[in-house]
Amino acid sequence: MGMQEKGKVRRYVYFFGNGRADGNGKMKDILGGKGAGLAEMTNLGIPVPPGFTICTEACKLFYAHQRHLPKPVEDEALRHLHRLEKAVRRRLGDGNDPLLVSVRSGAKFSMPGMMDTILNLGLNDRAVIGLATQTKDERFAWDSYRRFIAMFSDVVLEVEKKKFEEKLSEIKRKFGRSQDVELTAEELKELVGEFKALACRESGRDFPQDPLRQLQMARDAVFNSWNNDRAVFYRKQYGIPDDIGTGVNIQAMVFGNMGYTSATGVGFTRNPSTGHKEFYGEYLVNAQGEDVVAGIRTPRPIRHLKEDMPQAYRKLREVTRRLERHFRDVQDFEFTIEQGKLCMLQTRNGKRTGLAAVKIAVDMAREKLITKREAIMRVDAEQLAQYLFPVFDSSREGSATVLGKGLPAGPGAATGRIALTPDRAVEMARGGERVILVRGETSPDDIHGMNASAGILTGRGGMTSHAAVVARQMGKVCVAGCSSLEINESSRVVRAGGRVLPEGSSISLNGFTGTVYEGEVPVMPSEVIQVIQDKMSAKDSDKYRYFSTLLKWADEVRQLRIRANADIPDQACIARGFGAEGIGLCRTEHMFFAEDRLPIMQQMILARTREDRLQALQKLLPLQRNDFIGLFRAMRGYPVTIRFLDPPLHEFLPKREELLVDLARAETKANGEDLELKRKLLNRVEELYEFNPMLGFRGCRLGIVYPEISEMQARAVFEAACTVAKENIRVMPEVMIPLVSMDTEMRAQKRIVHRVGLEVMKREGIKVKYTVGTMLELPRAVVTADQIAAEAEFFSFGTNDLTQTTFGFSRDDSGRFINYYLNSSNTCTMCSSTQIDRKAGVCKVCKAEVDVGGPNIIEADPFSTLDRAGVGEMVRIGVERGRSRRPDLKTGVCGEHGGDPRSIHFFHSIGLDYVSCSPYRVPIARLAAAQAAITGKDSRNSGGRNGTRQAAR
Amino acid sequence: MGMQEKGKVRRYVYFFGNGRADGNGKMKDILGGKGAGLAEMTNLGIPVPPGFTICTEACKLFYAHQRHLPKPVEDEALRHLHRLEKAVRRRLGDGNDPLLVSVRSGAKFSMPGMMDTILNLGLNDRAVIGLATQTKDERFAWDSYRRFIAMFSDVVLEVEKKKFEEKLSEIKRKFGRSQDVELTAEELKELVGEFKALACRESGRDFPQDPLRQLQMARDAVFNSWNNDRAVFYRKQYGIPDDIGTGVNIQAMVFGNMGYTSATGVGFTRNPSTGHKEFYGEYLVNAQGEDVVAGIRTPRPIRHLKEDMPQAYRKLREVTRRLERHFRDVQDFEFTIEQGKLCMLQTRNGKRTGLAAVKIAVDMAREKLITKREAIMRVDAEQLAQYLFPVFDSSREGSATVLGKGLPAGPGAATGRIALTPDRAVEMARGGERVILVRGETSPDDIHGMNASAGILTGRGGMTSHAAVVARQMGKVCVAGCSSLEINESSRVVRAGGRVLPEGSSISLNGFTGTVYEGEVPVMPSEVIQVIQDKMSAKDSDKYRYFSTLLKWADEVRQLRIRANADIPDQACIARGFGAEGIGLCRTEHMFFAEDRLPIMQQMILARTREDRLQALQKLLPLQRNDFIGLFRAMRGYPVTIRFLDPPLHEFLPKREELLVDLARAETKANGEDLELKRKLLNRVEELYEFNPMLGFRGCRLGIVYPEISEMQARAVFEAACTVAKENIRVMPEVMIPLVSMDTEMRAQKRIVHRVGLEVMKREGIKVKYTVGTMLELPRAVVTADQIAAEAEFFSFGTNDLTQTTFGFSRDDSGRFINYYLNSSNTCTMCSSTQIDRKAGVCKVCKAEVDVGGPNIIEADPFSTLDRAGVGEMVRIGVERGRSRRPDLKTGVCGEHGGDPRSIHFFHSIGLDYVSCSPYRVPIARLAAAQAAITGKDSRNSGGRNGTRQAAR
Repeated sequence: MGMQEKGKVRRYVYFFGNGRADGNGKMKDILGGKGAGLAEMTNLGIPVPPGFTICTEACKLFYAHQRHLPKPVEDEALRHLHRLEKAVRRRLGDGNDPLLVSVRSGAKFSMPGMMDTILNLGLNDRAVIGLATQTKDERFAWDSYRRFIAMFSDVVLEVEKKKFEEKLSEIKRKFGRSQDVELTAEELKELVGEFKALACRESGRDFPQDPLRQLQMARDAVFNSWNNDRAVFYRKQYGIPDDIGTGVNIQAMVFGNMGYTSATGVGFTRNPSTGHKEFYGEYLVNAQGEDVVAGIRTPRPIRHLKEDMPQAYRKLREVTRRLERHFRDVQDFEFTIEQGKLCMLQTRNGKRTGLAAVKIAVDMAREKLITKREAIMRVDAEQLAQYLFPVFDSSREGSATVLGKGLPAGPGAATGRIALTPDRAVEMARGGERVILVRGETSPDDIHGMNASAGILTGRGGMTSHAAVVARQMGKVCVAGCSSLEINESSRVVRAGGRVLPEGSSISLNGFTGTVYEGEVPVMPSEVIQVIQDKMSAKDSDKYRYFSTLLKWADEVRQLRIRANADIPDQACIARGFGAEGIGLCRTEHMFFAEDRLPIMQQMILARTREDRLQALQKLLPLQRNDFIGLFRAMRGYPVTIRFLDPPLHEFLPKREELLVDLARAETKANGEDLELKRKLLNRVEELYEFNPMLGFRGCRLGIVYPEISEMQARAVFEAACTVAKENIRVMPEVMIPLVSMDTEMRAQKRIVHRVGLEVMKREGIKVKYTVGTMLELPRAVVTADQIAAEAEFFSFGTNDLTQTTFGFSRDDSGRFINYYLNSSNTCTMCSSTQIDRKAGVCKVCKAEVDVGGPNIIEADPFSTLDRAGVGEMVRIGVERGRSRRPDLKTGVCGEHGGDPRSIHFFHSIGLDYVSCSPYRVPIARLAAAQAAITGKDSRNSGGRNGTRQAAR
Repeated sequence: MGMQEKGKVRRYVYFFGNGRADGNGKMKDILGGKGAGLAEMTNLGIPVPPGFTICTEACKLFYAHQRHLPKPVEDEALRHLHRLEKAVRRRLGDGNDPLLVSVRSGAKFSMPGMMDTILNLGLNDRAVIGLATQTKDERFAWDSYRRFIAMFSDVVLEVEKKKFEEKLSEIKRKFGRSQDVELTAEELKELVGEFKALACRESGRDFPQDPLRQLQMARDAVFNSWNNDRAVFYRKQYGIPDDIGTGVNIQAMVFGNMGYTSATGVGFTRNPSTGHKEFYGEYLVNAQGEDVVAGIRTPRPIRHLKEDMPQAYRKLREVTRRLERHFRDVQDFEFTIEQGKLCMLQTRNGKRTGLAAVKIAVDMAREKLITKREAIMRVDAEQLAQYLFPVFDSSREGSATVLGKGLPAGPGAATGRIALTPDRAVEMARGGERVILVRGETSPDDIHGMNASAGILTGRGGMTSHAAVVARQMGKVCVAGCSSLEINESSRVVRAGGRVLPEGSSISLNGFTGTVYEGEVPVMPSEVIQVIQDKMSAKDSDKYRYFSTLLKWADEVRQLRIRANADIPDQACIARGFGAEGIGLCRTEHMFFAEDRLPIMQQMILARTREDRLQALQKLLPLQRNDFIGLFRAMRGYPVTIRFLDPPLHEFLPKREELLVDLARAETKANGEDLELKRKLLNRVEELYEFNPMLGFRGCRLGIVYPEISEMQARAVFEAACTVAKENIRVMPEVMIPLVSMDTEMRAQKRIVHRVGLEVMKREGIKVKYTVGTMLELPRAVVTADQIAAEAEFFSFGTNDLTQTTFGFSRDDSGRFINYYLNSSNTCTMCSSTQIDRKAGVCKVCKAEVDVGGPNIIEADPFSTLDRAGVGEMVRIGVERGRSRRPDLKTGVCGEHGGDPRSIHFFHSIGLDYVSCSPYRVPIARLAAAQAAITGKDSRNSGGRNGTRQAAR
């Protein structure tokens, strides 16, 4: 069976049904999440309609063969179809008792609503009669048929859905029906006729009557949907690889739309929004699954099912409890009740908010369902940020005007201006506005607009509607199903609570309560931040306690130390509150940009002589010393890394073009006096002008050419250190020399630091331990790290600048092509058009073949996530060479990457001592470091090449 | 004897005399060149006054001990002084028959006139009487004493020389003497009294009478002179390390000033200017050595010595012939004849012009004095450039106005404006002018001015005067001793040939003939270039034949292939003439800057749509194709590497600031129409504006975002290749993708090249072999070279850009601090002042101790000479990783470093296949590659770490 490949028989199709499945729950790679879940449930003896999964490998073959499934796989699928027919004792297209199937996508990582689904497949003019006969429900049969035609035409034939909706409305008008369910069988028959004609007219061919052909077309449509714009965008958003493909699940239909003993629903074993341990979900009676998820009708909370169908409810509780225990995680499930009989259609680990993720992980560990280590692994480190999001100021929220109330579908507080379409949301966000996307309901096509918005508000749909699910995953505030909302897209206004709000008006969403307010309600810090700032007691905050429990567990396992980048005492205090174990980067220049200091700094830069320069520096000394005193006090003995002046001097002066333009204007007006001054300033700016300031006169180059600057900074450090040490507070200054490319630079600057240190400590009569090291951020420093380590006691990798020089990418300029690079697989390599006919795999503009789904030139922005193969390799070489010379060399990272979980995993793997990140990312880094220690415990220190690339040496 | 160090007895003083020396000619490191030469001559039995050498290690100790010679070494020197006294049977300071000595510096590398010399040391008020008695020549004794006082005061006591000269003139005036030699003993006695008083007044202490003290002071002055400004400048100029120190030679005096049977002179065993095999030199009767070298009196050609002192002449010829055979190289010697008796004072390998170096090397190899390999090693590759210097157009030279005639001391043709002081020469050269430095005579203090000038003209001095020696070494055109010249420094004019030329007037120097012309005589290409351009026959040019013989020998041993960087067919032809084996870099953008193409290029850039862009590219295609046809024809089968478009697009547009200023002006004038146009242009320029264009939208990033550009360029390459292939000329295009940082970039661009190649070759019905590779110039490409080698068939290291990104130095901006870095050891590390009291080793401004003579932050400009430890290590890693993936990977270099001999040695050592440089540097590269093969034959390919640095891996 299956295709022969490299001598090994491969299988591409897996059956499940009647208590036994070919696959199991662990085979997500091959079966996709949905297929694996169905197989596992089948094996567990849980009622699941039988079916089979065409696996993800088949999808890859499909793309490798010009979007055709090779004959042997086609045959394999056919054999499984017959197996299914045998299992349910019905045949596809049978005129008496036809088999109907659903065709659903299912990739390894769930992508809710991103890909296409077709229900009721197998219906044709003959089978619909059979269905009617068999179910004795003619209305149901024709209702199913019209649904199928519309869905198939939309997904497979690419006929606009709206046209079918219009036709439906037309028929309803014609027969005076206000609801779909009021349409009679006869009326539905007429509708089916109209639908078929519409499909034929729009697609240019008869609606396919051969059920086998329907099945093949639907299956290929699912494969093709892997590369639709929504799916591509989603994968990019969540870092899902483009080349893993989707499976296709073909499953015997069960019907939730067989009258009032039937229903369909979805749910979670715990609340995915708050994490509370409660059975949670929604259902619709007499409906098909798509109605729930799409948010077209607002469904009923699941507790009502207990009353509506008590037996089915009991069964559902029993099954879902079992599933949670079995999978040891919150389950997100779909079910259908067909005439009282429960069938499970899906189960998977439920997506949840960050708040819920922490609570569920900690609760489950306490319930002994999982270990502490598993609890640590259950939370996406990035999601911890949700604990720090601001909330509404409760003292002000009370007096705000309430516009309505919906379901609290995504926690948090959001204010912004109303956008009524996703495109408008993107446009407004680009203009720098905070946006609230307001929609009747959202669909997968809206995803770019949701991404651009701070909050999402919908008029229809429940807690598991598209808007709710996606918003929670994105960490967006969301209020769903706010039924008092009346949206008029054509006149661009929203009516609610008796008010008329034109697009662009401000509103506020409370995602914890579901309340919608007019205007901007003031926000205040989150509970966690209030606790850290001593404005709230830890025991009053459940949120803080869950948050800190998980982080305490994380601290027990992590090996990387976490420091913060902080320039002023306030930031240092917050960093300590978040658990930072020192300051990894204090950028001294930030102090010079302060309003009271900039003029002195400019005076120093404009100085023509050393004497004038010294005079200005003399004024900066006490200011800088005070800054350091504050930092040392705040860090109470933890190390504080102080970087000497780094940016090019012209950053402190007015811009050259502005002066040029000013001067040109002034010249034309012939204003003599003004002219002279401007010319003078311009002269100095011209002198300092650089074509590539990033590669210019900055970093330690400043301190070497103007040693008096380094001397002043060293003096401020040591005077501050001595002052604080005399207060009996331990101080541990680490002086960091920036932008070193040669050991000789390091030596020259170190000599100044040591000389001043000795002098100050002698004068003050107190000794302070300190170290001198460098910010390693240039490739030359990396390859000569052994020489530099002879001079430097620590290396702090400045991965921002190192990324710039390693790639030759200017952070300020490279956006243009990096954005292109990130999307290149969706772009024609011949004409760079993005108008790709994905189905045909050709460029619509130049007709060249396009390798859709291939890798992008670059898969992640290297300024956000460390480029392991290049910049990571640089860091590895630097650590290796540095330690070869100085085995106890302290190594860390202080670039943006220090707070990026993916990068932290890498830094752990190559054995760094610490990472330093912004204060607000310290909790994220603590958790990520623990996760790295758990997943990477074998590779750490044993040579960073593990887990990176295999290089040839 | 000697100092104990690490258990080993070290000696610091070496004796020579009476036919035996402690040292020998191979010990230049320890004894310095002069000391080694004296030792070797002594061992050979050649008459040399006895003496001893305090070695270079002692100089290092001197600096290590706060400029004091440690006591044990002092004692060692004293013991050798006694040995000398015993050998010559005279005692220092003896009142009857005193020993007089000379004290001379002598480093490993000769630095003519750069350091200080003192003659007649040992004279005091008592010894002068003894000398008079012993020599029976009172006048001679007092003449020697006054010379000694003046020289010692100048060098050791730092009293201005000019003051002694004034005093001498005063005395001459007083006694009515016009020449020094006319002064009587009594008059000289009075002069000595005046000199002593002057020295005491100016230095604040009595002139030292203790000869031992004199000797110590003189020796320390020599050690101190190692770090005088002239010596520091000289070492920097010639890449001599600062830390090797100088030796001090203390030698019994012989006197060339003992009347008319005495003389002193210098000479060469072959002509150092032309290389002709002729005995060559100058001498002065009744004079001391300094008179010849300083150029104060114009000496007589050495052939006259044959008549003046035939016996001494014969002896000299015999000795110098023997020296040339012994040392197997041209000897530059100094001698003194004391009352008919010849003594040799120095011999060393003679410095020579490039023309002479080649001729001498080839001649000596033919004479079997040296091997061909030695001949190759005898020529400094850089000096070959002298063969390519232009000469005067002989048809125009005849009609030029002759101002005078001097000695042809430095070959070549130079035109420029007159500068009368070195400072003025530097100033004019900075202003972009070509300068001829015109001086009465030059002194070591003039060296910065000579360096800044195109030619040097002196009124006094011979072929071995300071001006002549230094000019030849610098490769400058020089006419020396042009006696018709009358220079008036105060009125800033030169009078010659009846003309009055103010400073700044144009003159021309013919360094082959010694003729000086008024105005600028037009120049024409050198003989070698005329032969290459077929404007002269090889057999008519001796110069060409010597040049090509040596290069032929070089080709026999070198392993590196040499290519040229050429953008247009003309350059390619010259490159072929110079022996280039292909084009290593054709920068296609240079073609786009041509006047007829720039508007089309701008049209392409301003295009808003692909269609418009294609239209412009369509116009560029035939032009570019024609360029390539020309290159392929010129290279006739040799490989041609064509680099795709590289620079940022805004380089083709007007500058942003200019547009901004224009616009500001136009706005103020409120000129509507003009305004609109300017705004439009500015808009596009603003769009393309980059903060760091070096790290911006350039290189393959252009070809990826605008694939149609790469497509057009590929089309031009293949259409040209097919066209030329049909002419039955072999073509070998190598398509080079610039600025690749990722394998995915390489893959995307290669795909376009292959597709277009296939298409064009199919259409043209002819197959052409080609390869696609990359310019490796980014650190990321280096560390992922294995991945990139999977896609690229060759790597050409772009060491210019690689230096920029490795160091983080922008070539356009870094001059400011690189110049500082190159001189940092002469700069106070505390206050960055260059006003260093070198003698005391302290900064004159801030009084900090300065580590004079320590290493500089950087020793060579990394944009001129490859930085081996950093950028070189990058290249090594790139080659190693690249070859690990593709063992037959072709590797080369096409940056500026490809033509730099020192860098070529490194490229050879790490096993590159070729270097590519500017056409005019191809001969230099051929020779340097041969030299690298000879010196580095053990290390090549066996791992480039040899000869670079020991890194820890």
